[in-house]
Amino acid sequence: MIDPKHIEALRDIVGAENVHSDKAHLRAYSYDATRTHYEPDAVIFPRHEEDVSRILTYCNHHRIAIVPRGAGSGFTGGALPVNGGIVLAMERHMNKILEIDMENMLAVVQPGVINKELQRHVEELGLFYPPDPASEEYSTLGGNVSENAGGMRAAKYGLTKDYVMALRAVRANGDIIRAGKRTIKDVAGYNVAGILIASEGTLAVITEITLKLIPKPKYVKSYMGIFPDVEAAMNAVFKSLAEGANPVAMEFLDALVVKAVKEKLGIELPEEAGALLIGDVDGNVPEEVAFQLKVLEESFRANGAQEFRVAEDPAEREKLWQARRGASQSITIYGSKKLNEDISVPRSMLPKALKEIYAIGEKYGLVVPCFGHAGDGNIHVNVMVDGNDPDELERGHKAIREIFQLVVDLGGTLSGEHGIGLSKAEFMEIAFSPAELQLFRDIKKAFDPNGILNPGKMGL
Amino acid sequence: MIDPKHIEALRDIVGAENVHSDKAHLRAYSYDATRTHYEPDAVIFPRHEEDVSRILTYCNHHRIAIVPRGAGSGFTGGALPVNGGIVLAMERHMNKILEIDMENMLAVVQPGVINKELQRHVEELGLFYPPDPASEEYSTLGGNVSENAGGMRAAKYGLTKDYVMALRAVRANGDIIRAGKRTIKDVAGYNVAGILIASEGTLAVITEITLKLIPKPKYVKSYMGIFPDVEAAMNAVFKSLAEGANPVAMEFLDALVVKAVKEKLGIELPEEAGALLIGDVDGNVPEEVAFQLKVLEESFRANGAQEFRVAEDPAEREKLWQARRGASQSITIYGSKKLNEDISVPRSMLPKALKEIYAIGEKYGLVVPCFGHAGDGNIHVNVMVDGNDPDELERGHKAIREIFQLVVDLGGTLSGEHGIGLSKAEFMEIAFSPAELQLFRDIKKAFDPNGILNPGKMGL
Repeated sequence: MIDPKHIEALRDIVGAENVHSDKAHLRAYSYDATRTHYEPDAVIFPRHEEDVSRILTYCNHHRIAIVPRGAGSGFTGGALPVNGGIVLAMERHMNKILEIDMENMLAVVQPGVINKELQRHVEELGLFYPPDPASEEYSTLGGNVSENAGGMRAAKYGLTKDYVMALRAVRANGDIIRAGKRTIKDVAGYNVAGILIASEGTLAVITEITLKLIPKPKYVKSYMGIFPDVEAAMNAVFKSLAEGANPVAMEFLDALVVKAVKEKLGIELPEEAGALLIGDVDGNVPEEVAFQLKVLEESFRANGAQEFRVAEDPAEREKLWQARRGASQSITIYGSKKLNEDISVPRSMLPKALKEIYAIGEKYGLVVPCFGHAGDGNIHVNVMVDGNDPDELERGHKAIREIFQLVVDLGGTLSGEHGIGLSKAEFMEIAFSPAELQLFRDIKKAFDPNGILNPGKMGL
Repeated sequence: MIDPKHIEALRDIVGAENVHSDKAHLRAYSYDATRTHYEPDAVIFPRHEEDVSRILTYCNHHRIAIVPRGAGSGFTGGALPVNGGIVLAMERHMNKILEIDMENMLAVVQPGVINKELQRHVEELGLFYPPDPASEEYSTLGGNVSENAGGMRAAKYGLTKDYVMALRAVRANGDIIRAGKRTIKDVAGYNVAGILIASEGTLAVITEITLKLIPKPKYVKSYMGIFPDVEAAMNAVFKSLAEGANPVAMEFLDALVVKAVKEKLGIELPEEAGALLIGDVDGNVPEEVAFQLKVLEESFRANGAQEFRVAEDPAEREKLWQARRGASQSITIYGSKKLNEDISVPRSMLPKALKEIYAIGEKYGLVVPCFGHAGDGNIHVNVMVDGNDPDELERGHKAIREIFQLVVDLGGTLSGEHGIGLSKAEFMEIAFSPAELQLFRDIKKAFDPNGILNPGKMGL
């Protein structure tokens, strides 16, 4: 609990109407998508960068923890105030699209802007902001940058980091920092924007984001490859890409997920489907789209696909995508709680990774449906457990630890897009050497010597 | 001068045959493309990462400066041992392509591999490594990463940073660090690779680089737009891109450069050409190439282009590119010394930037031919002076300072691809606030507390 005099001082800085320490607010800002609760001492809605700077200066001086928060939609506890302190919520005031620069094809936004709001806005202007995390309808761009959010379209179009041209941010000591420029190239000074991306609010508070936009592709079609088993599908993923396919998305559903979407959502899929790959291809000309579909179909069939479907118009495309969109929701047929991890491996390791993940599930007597962004090697692994059965939960956690060890042994990473936060902090020593962890701590200390920014995260 | 006992100790570490302190070696490793000389105390050729780690551990303990060196082809003095110490040269042993992973489309190389050697090697396998700095025939990939090298193809394919998937590096204290993975997505831990790129050897010594490769595009054509003046060409640059063109390259030559390539190299160009845009377009299908050419031609003509030429076959393409390739060499007709700066501005600022740059030249009575990578906003500005005329040199340096101030005022950067090094260190306070410079120093200190790595660079 922080001294109430600090709350008063912060009210003087941002106005009483923007500082809340009543039970309802503390409760409302205590959780994120992990469904874990930690109450802060106060919730503050900064009006602008200057507020953020003054709040941080004050809190740094008094060693008060600051947890920046977008929509609280993160899966690893990044927005949870585990040590209390102040939640700095961007949603009320710092939520504006400040500028669309058509000539340089970029957008300048505040961190509280919802991802999809930017997408819609720029698409009306004929431009395109590709990063589309599953949370796009509610997650904020500030959160997306802090976690380096990916999405379905990452296979072709990359991640949030590939679109961040510049940031403005406030250091723990209140210093306002500009990092990057409205230029494609910039090698003056250290790449501060590069290290703030995916730093989960532990290095600085992001106050403004300049994002690259691209022309909207004119032609899009969707495809579905139907495979007898997971191994065939996983081989088709890396082989089709190595043969020159460049699909917008290449999403994967395993046999358990196929069964679940049929049973729970009544989606019609072939009886024999043991795994699916679903995605889009796009281009400036129809011939490019046809070229992509040809490479995919040939490679899919060479790797055992029983069927290759193409959806041309929006209605057909929507139908074809239903199975993928229902994946997350449908697998609740296997257990009341899913331990959902977003591992990522080199694509050629996908067949081996999936095989061994199922074996780990079997060893612990648990079902592990898998789906996700196979085109970039990022798979959502869901260890299903009965949330009310402590023994099953414990087995689930053991399985997760083994899965992470496997992934790291295959040259993969603990997280493709969800971050480390609180949930994965205990696994950092699997992935990093003591020297690497020490470097992380040294970087953290350089930015935030008093450790006030989002303490307790990333295992630091 | 360092104590000779240290040279002996370093001989014990890497073998006497890999440590040189004779005058010929010290002289040979005292310069780079800036033609400035600073002799080191010794030149060491490490055999492997373990050597690098042991050398750094020793030098860190004894506070001996270490300057990592690739080919010494940098334009800003990055490889110059300004405080003496050890030049760590990667060219003799750490110069191997270690692996081409066809399945995951990536290359693992040592820092001393020449850029073009990798390009040739992977193109034989049907793959493509796009970054192509003008120094590609001799610059090393370690140097390219340390400066975040660009090149002609950056307009479509991006910079070195867009291809770095992972690095291995040694910190000043000798710790070996892995950063990044063979995965497209990785958000576990801080983006250490991201901040090592373009850090000019001041944060760590890079010992291994994992680079993304892409499928080689099947169809390429070249184009040339001929414009009456620079303003028309500069407008055509950003307007054609905003209309959806995505050329591989969009290179610019101003009227002075056009005159120079005609006079010095005898290249035939239209009488009325006041500015040229030259580039390539590519695609998987001929229709994509045609689409790109159509967008470019329409937009170029709408912005005043008198002519739009297309070169189809390799011989024609080579001919069309001659003018651009001869640009740097030809402008010596304007002066014995060129003060060459690679400024970069938001593309829509190009017309204004060029106009004001010429005005600055006029103010100081100097000719300033400009050419370069207009497609990404990066222009090589050449203030031409008589190298033997101290007054002209002084006026040249004053003009450069004004040009940098202009560029920063237009939202641009001191360097698009050459880095800061020694040459631009004095201009850092134009581009960065005291708080930003302090953050750079804090980052430097976090990685290298004793300041042994490439001291005196980047204005830190």
